[in-house]
Amino acid sequence: MKENYLLKTEQAQRLYSNTAKNLPIIDFHNHITLKDIVNDRKFNNIYELWLECDPYKHRLMRICGIPEFFITGGAEPYEKFKKYCEIFPHLAGNPVYDWSRMELSSIFGINELPCRENAKKIFDATGEMLSSSEYTNNAILSRFNIEYQSPVASILDELSDFDGKKTAPSLRGDELLLPTEKLKNDLSTASDIKITDDDSYTNAICKLLDRFEKADCKFADHALDDGFFEEDSKKQEILIRLGNEYAKRGWTLLLHLDAKRKTSSRLRAIAGAAGGYAASGGRFDTSALCDLLGKMEDSGALPRTVLFPLTMSDQTTLAILEGSFSEDGIKGKIQLGPAWWWCDHSFGIKNALDSIASFGVLSEFIGMTTDSRSILSFVRHDYFRRIFCSYLDELNSKNELDMTYETMTEIVEKVCYKNAYERIKKNEKI
Amino acid sequence: MKENYLLKTEQAQRLYSNTAKNLPIIDFHNHITLKDIVNDRKFNNIYELWLECDPYKHRLMRICGIPEFFITGGAEPYEKFKKYCEIFPHLAGNPVYDWSRMELSSIFGINELPCRENAKKIFDATGEMLSSSEYTNNAILSRFNIEYQSPVASILDELSDFDGKKTAPSLRGDELLLPTEKLKNDLSTASDIKITDDDSYTNAICKLLDRFEKADCKFADHALDDGFFEEDSKKQEILIRLGNEYAKRGWTLLLHLDAKRKTSSRLRAIAGAAGGYAASGGRFDTSALCDLLGKMEDSGALPRTVLFPLTMSDQTTLAILEGSFSEDGIKGKIQLGPAWWWCDHSFGIKNALDSIASFGVLSEFIGMTTDSRSILSFVRHDYFRRIFCSYLDELNSKNELDMTYETMTEIVEKVCYKNAYERIKKNEKI
Amino acid sequence: MKENYLLKTEQAQRLYSNTAKNLPIIDFHNHITLKDIVNDRKFNNIYELWLECDPYKHRLMRICGIPEFFITGGAEPYEKFKKYCEIFPHLAGNPVYDWSRMELSSIFGINELPCRENAKKIFDATGEMLSSSEYTNNAILSRFNIEYQSPVASILDELSDFDGKKTAPSLRGDELLLPTEKLKNDLSTASDIKITDDDSYTNAICKLLDRFEKADCKFADHALDDGFFEEDSKKQEILIRLGNEYAKRGWTLLLHLDAKRKTSSRLRAIAGAAGGYAASGGRFDTSALCDLLGKMEDSGALPRTVLFPLTMSDQTTLAILEGSFSEDGIKGKIQLGPAWWWCDHSFGIKNALDSIASFGVLSEFIGMTTDSRSILSFVRHDYFRRIFCSYLDELNSKNELDMTYETMTEIVEKVCYKNAYERIKKNEKI
Repeated sequence: MKENYLLKTEQAQRLYSNTAKNLPIIDFHNHITLKDIVNDRKFNNIYELWLECDPYKHRLMRICGIPEFFITGGAEPYEKFKKYCEIFPHLAGNPVYDWSRMELSSIFGINELPCRENAKKIFDATGEMLSSSEYTNNAILSRFNIEYQSPVASILDELSDFDGKKTAPSLRGDELLLPTEKLKNDLSTASDIKITDDDSYTNAICKLLDRFEKADCKFADHALDDGFFEEDSKKQEILIRLGNEYAKRGWTLLLHLDAKRKTSSRLRAIAGAAGGYAASGGRFDTSALCDLLGKMEDSGALPRTVLFPLTMSDQTTLAILEGSFSEDGIKGKIQLGPAWWWCDHSFGIKNALDSIASFGVLSEFIGMTTDSRSILSFVRHDYFRRIFCSYLDELNSKNELDMTYETMTEIVEKVCYKNAYERIKKNEKI
Repeated sequence: MKENYLLKTEQAQRLYSNTAKNLPIIDFHNHITLKDIVNDRKFNNIYELWLECDPYKHRLMRICGIPEFFITGGAEPYEKFKKYCEIFPHLAGNPVYDWSRMELSSIFGINELPCRENAKKIFDATGEMLSSSEYTNNAILSRFNIEYQSPVASILDELSDFDGKKTAPSLRGDELLLPTEKLKNDLSTASDIKITDDDSYTNAICKLLDRFEKADCKFADHALDDGFFEEDSKKQEILIRLGNEYAKRGWTLLLHLDAKRKTSSRLRAIAGAAGGYAASGGRFDTSALCDLLGKMEDSGALPRTVLFPLTMSDQTTLAILEGSFSEDGIKGKIQLGPAWWWCDHSFGIKNALDSIASFGVLSEFIGMTTDSRSILSFVRHDYFRRIFCSYLDELNSKNELDMTYETMTEIVEKVCYKNAYERIKKNEKI
Repeated sequence: MKENYLLKTEQAQRLYSNTAKNLPIIDFHNHITLKDIVNDRKFNNIYELWLECDPYKHRLMRICGIPEFFITGGAEPYEKFKKYCEIFPHLAGNPVYDWSRMELSSIFGINELPCRENAKKIFDATGEMLSSSEYTNNAILSRFNIEYQSPVASILDELSDFDGKKTAPSLRGDELLLPTEKLKNDLSTASDIKITDDDSYTNAICKLLDRFEKADCKFADHALDDGFFEEDSKKQEILIRLGNEYAKRGWTLLLHLDAKRKTSSRLRAIAGAAGGYAASGGRFDTSALCDLLGKMEDSGALPRTVLFPLTMSDQTTLAILEGSFSEDGIKGKIQLGPAWWWCDHSFGIKNALDSIASFGVLSEFIGMTTDSRSILSFVRHDYFRRIFCSYLDELNSKNELDMTYETMTEIVEKVCYKNAYERIKKNEKI
C-alpha cells in the first residue's frame, strides 16, 4: 500500500508518521490461538494463513455464490484461494477488501490486487515465503510491534500458555451465566468448593478468577446476545455478581451486544458456531442495559465497561451512556468501544468516532482491538490509526476546533495506545 | 437538467455517459396502471399526468398547509397545479423537488424551476404537448428505454393485459396472509379446488401461482407492516408456505418492511388507503424477520429475498443479513433493496449504498426499482444511476480502493441492469 | 471566534451576515430562572455564571474522572473553574467545547482556548468584568437580540414574573399526567373546582390553563420518557385531553421523547434530578406515538406538535411523521424539532436537517431553541445559524438544487425566525 494510504492531508500524514505509526499495539480482546504461538506454527500455504481461519472472507465468498466446497469443503487449498481471488476485485467497498490488501502488502510485500489472473502467481510466491523461517506464526507476529494482547480464555482453561508479558488471558465469561451441571461439577473440582447455591457458585468462580488475576488478566468479556434481556433473569443476576468481582479486581468489562447467532441452521451445520453468518437483533434495549449497570453499581461495584453494539445505529445511543455512570478518578468509565465485527469498516468506524466525540470525550476513547482469530488481523490497527488520524484532522478543520498539533498528538497517543495501556498496567484508580 | 447533473467528477461522468445512461431499465416492482398502456391513455393536462396520481406530491402540498380542496378536492386542474408550483421553490431538499424537475425536463424539455409566476406558462405549454400523439401514455413510456417492468397484480387478477415481454405481473400477496371467507370462495372458484384446510388453501393458491408463472412472473411482494410479528402467527405460517412456493418457482421475494399505514383516520377518509400519509413503525424486529427466513429455509426452501425497510436506520441492520442465508451458486441471495418509499432520496440512497458496500457486496446489489404509480417515475432510475456513478467513484477515491475503470464499469452494469436481469431471465441457479 | 466561524463558502457567509446574524431570537423552550431577570442577578465570578448551572459541563468533567468535589462539591469556585480549564483542550469534538468558546468570546471577548496555563488569567479577567454593571444577568441577556423566550412554568406557578412581551411562560405539563393527591388538592384550591373525576380534573386544569393563556403562553411541553407507552395508560388518556385543550388554544405541543432519567442512583444522589447523567432508551416506539397523535385528533383536536427524540437514529423515523397528520391551512403541523439535548452537536444538527429536508419540508422547520438553564446558552442560536447557512448552501450545491440566493434567504429567515414567530403571534390558522 502507499505510504499515505487513507491519509489525505499533510496534517493527517504528520500525525500518522510522527506518532500513530510508531505506537505499540495493545490488542485487548482477540481470539488468537495460543498454541500457534507456543508451537510457532508453520503455514503450508497462504490458504492456511489467510483464508482458512477467516470467517469474514468465507462470508463474502458465500454472498458471491461460491459453493461451500470451495470455502470450507473438500477443495484443494489452491482452488479455494483461487476462488477468493476471482471475486476479489468485486468486493471493493467491503472492509475485508481493504484488510486483505493490507495483509498481502504488509506481510508479503504484494501490492497487486488479487484476481483470477494472478492467483497462481501469488499462491506460489507466498508459498515460497511461508516455507522460510521469516514467515512462521511468531515471525509474522513480530512484525506488528505488539506490546500486549489478551486472547480470550474460558474459566477452566489452562493458562500456562500465556507468558504474562506479551500475552495475558482475558476471560470469556458467557458459559458462566447459564451454568450446566457439568460446568458446576468442573468448577467444584477445579476450585475445591462444593457448589450448592448461588453463593457457593460465585465463590467457586472467584477462586478461579484469582487464577486469571495471577495470570495478569485485565478484561472480562460477555456477549449479551439478541434476546438477552427477555431471557431467564437468572443470567442477569449472575452477571451482576460477576461484574462486582471484576470491579474489585480492577478489570474492564467488555460487553458485546445484540448478536443474533441463530440465523440459518443449514449454514450452522456447515460452518460451525462461528461461521460468519451471524446477524444483529436490531432493536437493542439500551434501557435494560442501563438498568443492569445500575444494579451492578448498587449491589457492590460497577467495573469499567466498554460497549460493543452490533447494530450500527446503537453506536450513537450507547455513546450517551458514557456520561451516565461516571466515577471520581476514573476516566471514560463506561464507554462505546471500537466499531465491532461487521461494523468494523470505515463507515462504522467514522460513525463510532462521531458518536464518541459528539456525545462523550474522544480523547478518553480506549481505541482499537481486533477481536479476531487471524494473526494477520493486526493490520487493522494500522487501518484504524490511519482513519483516526484523518478523522481527527478533518474534525479539527471542519468544525474549526483550533486544536494545536500538540493537542492532536496527545489525543492520537491516548486513543491509539495510552488509554488501553492504562487498563493493563494499573489496578489502582487512575 | 444539465448533462452532468449530480456527476461532479470526470470519472463519474464517464461511468454515467459511457455505461449507466445507456443501460435498459428493469423495473421489477411498481404500481403502473396496465389499462393505461392497453388503452394508450391520453392526458388532458399536466395535472392528470403529473399530480393527480402522485401521493408524494400530495403529501408535500399538505405539509405546506395547502387546503385539500386544491390537492384531491374539487378545484380545477390548473388551480391545483398552480398551488403546487407556488410552493415548489420551498420544497428544495426533498427528493420530490428533484424528481419533479427531472420529469419536466426529460419529458417536456422544461428546465425552469416551477413557481407562482410561470405556472400558467408551463400549464399551457405542456397542455399543448400532451394533446399531440408524442405525449400519450405509451409515447412517454417509450422514452425511457424500459426493457422490462413488472407491475403488481393480485392473485385473482386478470393477467391478459401483460404482454409477457415488456410487462409481466409481479404478485402482490398481502391479502393471502389473512384470507377472508370471500377470498377463500373466490380462490376455490378460480382454482377449482375446494378449500377446507391449510393444505387445500395452499393448493388452491399454487394453482393460481401457476397462472402467474405462465405470465412470466418473477417477483412476489409482501408487506410486513409495523406490528406484523406481534399479530396472528397464522400470517407467518402462510407466508412460510408461500415462500417455499416462490422459491420452487425461482421467484424473488420482495419484503416491504415496517410501514405504519394507520396514522390519521381523517386523512385516510380524505385521501384513501394509499394517500401519502403513511409513517414507519421505527423499531423493526430484525430478529423475528431472521427467524421467519430461517423457518422458510428449514421447511422447504427460502427464495431469493430483497428487503425494503422504511425506517432508515434499519438499512444498516438489514444489510448484515446478506451474509446470513447464503446458498451455493446464488449471488446476493438475501439482500437490502434500494432505498424505499420515503427513504428514496440522496440521503437514504447513499446510506443504503454505504450499508450494502460495508456490510455486504455492492456489486451484487439488485439496484433500483420505482415502486411507483406514475409513469413519469422512471426518471428515478436516471436519478439513481447518476448518484450511483458518483458514489462509486467517490468510494473508490475516498477509500483508495484502486478499482480500475473496467471494474467500476462492470459494477455499474451489474447494479444498474445485469443483477436485476438475472432475476427475470433465469429460473435455474446462476 | 472568527467572523466566518463555521462558514466555509462565500455564499454561506453572505447568507449568515446579510440575514441569519441579524434576525431576532425566539427561544420557545428553555429553563431560564425568571428570578434572575427580575432581580437582575450579579455574578460573583465566572464559575457562577458559566459552570455552576451547566450540567453539560459537569457531565464532561465527570467523564474525565474529575472528583465530584471539584464539580458540585465543596471546592472553591476558582478550583472548579481551573479543573474545567485543565481538561478543556481534550474536550474537542464535543459541542460543549464549541459552546464554551463561543460563550467566552461573545460575552467576554476572550478568544484563547481555556487551559491549565491561562485558567487564573481568565478567572481574574472575567471576574473584573462581572463586577461591572455591563455584565449583570440582564446586561448579558441584552446582548443576544432576544425578541421572545418562553421559560417553562408548572401549572401552579406564579406567572407574575413573566412580562408578557419578551418573556412568556410555556407550560411544563409532566406532573399533570400522573397526579398526586397533593396536586389534585392544590389544583382544586387554585381553580376553585372540586376534583372528583376525570372531567372535573380536566376542568380544573383548563381553568389554570386560562391563566397561562392570559400570560401569552403558546407552548406546552411533555416528556414522554423511555417506557412511557408501557406505563399506566391513564397517562396517555390525560395527555390526549390536554392535547385537545392545547389545540383549542392554538398552542404548540412539544414532546421530548425517550429520555432515560434513571441511570446511576449514586449520581442522582450527588447531582440531583437534572444532573447531566441521563441516557436515552434507544428503541422508541414511534408506532405508539403515532397512535397517540391519532387518538388526540379523533377525540377533538390535535395541536401543532414538535418532536424531540433523544435517540439520534429516531430523527429520520420521526421526520416521516411530518406527512402523517397534515391539516388544511397549517404549515408543518407535526414536525421534527431541532436536535435535542445530547444530540445538539453538529453531527446531530446535520442529521436532523438532512432528515427534515429529505423526509419533509425544510423551509417549514421551526428552528432552534436552547432548552437550557444557562443564559449563556443563547450563543447556540448563533451556532445553529452558522451551521444552518452552511448546510443550506452545501445542500444546494451538492444536490444541484439551483436555489436562487433569494430563495435561500427566505428559507434562512423562515427557519431562523419566522416559523417560530408564527407560533407566538397568531392564534388563528395561518
